[in-house]
Amino acid sequence: MARYSIRTEIDRPYDQALAATKAALGSEGFGVLTEIDVRATMKKKLDKDFRPYVILGACNPPSAYRALGEELEVGLFLPCNVIVYETTPGHAAVAAIDPEIVMEPIENPNLRPLAREIGARLRRVIEAVRATANEPAGA
Amino acid sequence: MARYSIRTEIDRPYDQALAATKAALGSEGFGVLTEIDVRATMKKKLDKDFRPYVILGACNPPSAYRALGEELEVGLFLPCNVIVYETTPGHAAVAAIDPEIVMEPIENPNLRPLAREIGARLRRVIEAVRATANEPAGA
Repeated sequence: MARYSIRTEIDRPYDQALAATKAALGSEGFGVLTEIDVRATMKKKLDKDFRPYVILGACNPPSAYRALGEELEVGLFLPCNVIVYETTPGHAAVAAIDPEIVMEPIENPNLRPLAREIGARLRRVIEAVRATANEPAGA
Repeated sequence: MARYSIRTEIDRPYDQALAATKAALGSEGFGVLTEIDVRATMKKKLDKDFRPYVILGACNPPSAYRALGEELEVGLFLPCNVIVYETTPGHAAVAAIDPEIVMEPIENPNLRPLAREIGARLRRVIEAVRATANEPAGA
């Protein structure tokens, strides 16, 4: 696993993985502020075929508000990206950026506990997605 | 200046700075895939007042396509964030993430030249925004 991501693979089709990811984000207090359909964008802009792949911009508003109060330009790191993509048909990967790793270049020590807290929430999101793969299909 | 950003401040109101930033991004081949109005989001989600502040998600599709071919999960770092916010009324800051810094945790050396190229484009965007501040107001 890349050191910058919190990640799982599940034996579920892409669409189910995406729905499970959005549900898990909601349960952990994240809103999805942005959604980029990478496949559709590549088709539209470049006429290239690409696998099903989405980039979700996840934001926990109270944490974002506190982070902006600590470091005004932390918006350059917000929202936290979560990707869902098809590995092979019927199987998907779900990964979240590790905020503690990506925010390392920010020298403000007051952000560290916030990044750790958001990282813990994102780990629970990925765990919840992983758990859905152990449920009966279609559940 | 923080080491993670490419930044300028201009003596122009926020709205003009935002328009200049979008124009400069377009001239350098970036589409704006996402736009988060931080002030509106904080008001809506938390009923908190915040300064005018926007997070733009800028993407150069050919570069993104090449990057995804090199490192499938680079979507966790895409699009490149560009923020515009009011410093004091009539004055604004514009900053872009430095892709070379933020992508340091990615160990794939094939991404380095791409990150450098995108960084150079973003530097030209910020330079172009800075240049607008030297034009007659309203030009």
